[in-house]
Amino acid sequence: MPLRSDWSSATCPIARSADVLADPWVLLILREMFSGRLRFDELREATGAADSVLARRLTSMADAGLVEREGIGSRAGYRLTDAGRETLPILHAYARFSRVTDPDGPWGLTVSCGRCGEVAASVDRCIACDAPLDADSARWARRSMGGAPFALTGGASA
Amino acid sequence: MPLRSDWSSATCPIARSADVLADPWVLLILREMFSGRLRFDELREATGAADSVLARRLTSMADAGLVEREGIGSRAGYRLTDAGRETLPILHAYARFSRVTDPDGPWGLTVSCGRCGEVAASVDRCIACDAPLDADSARWARRSMGGAPFALTGGASA
Repeated sequence: MPLRSDWSSATCPIARSADVLADPWVLLILREMFSGRLRFDELREATGAADSVLARRLTSMADAGLVEREGIGSRAGYRLTDAGRETLPILHAYARFSRVTDPDGPWGLTVSCGRCGEVAASVDRCIACDAPLDADSARWARRSMGGAPFALTGGASA
Repeated sequence: MPLRSDWSSATCPIARSADVLADPWVLLILREMFSGRLRFDELREATGAADSVLARRLTSMADAGLVEREGIGSRAGYRLTDAGRETLPILHAYARFSRVTDPDGPWGLTVSCGRCGEVAASVDRCIACDAPLDADSARWARRSMGGAPFALTGGASA
């Protein structure tokens, strides 16, 4: 990306991860991919990103090993790699910040634990039942998708 | 910022937080402020940001209620607000992503628990002693600052 520094080889682990992941569009693309939207046209519709914006982000995400392209033609899409699935705590940390600093806000996304069902009070661990809160065990409920909790893409089914 | 969408009123809590916080410079500025660097010239030196880049980010962080300007003249600086201190799990989530996806990387920053001393295995909770891992209780060790664990700005002393 022009006019941006390159932190991919920084020794600070915050700076290294931020190089690709500290970008609002990348976070929204990951949110949609965890929600099961894996095709280019689905991602475009769900994020509202322009084609060029979306294509550029998907390329940088693929270069960083977060997603892989699969399929051809009209069935082409993307899948989250293992590294891509490890971004979940970053998304949860952003979501949690909004809830903590604006508790009355109208929240379109709620994170809960797939084991005990409690709404998440931590970014990566269920405080209620002490289970890890990862891409396998977390459940999301999104108002724009009907509001029922669902397992994340590639996660164990509910 | 030009050419960027405004997500500050989005109902998705990820998008709302991302509006100001999904920016590498903002994350580096927060890293330095948690490390005790609170004056403009200290922040400039520690992040390597140009004056205009740093000033613009500090303005957007103040507008978002993350920092407050204090003092005048050569002693002018910034302090983290309560909301600013709530960004810590976001920084920890980025740091943890680097460690999980590249365990052998040369890490310049290590997070540990101020209560039991264990290196953090979660973003916001100590897995070893079950204490919350927040701006009061977390300790950082930074190679560029001598490598000894220190309490974060405004946190309880070690």
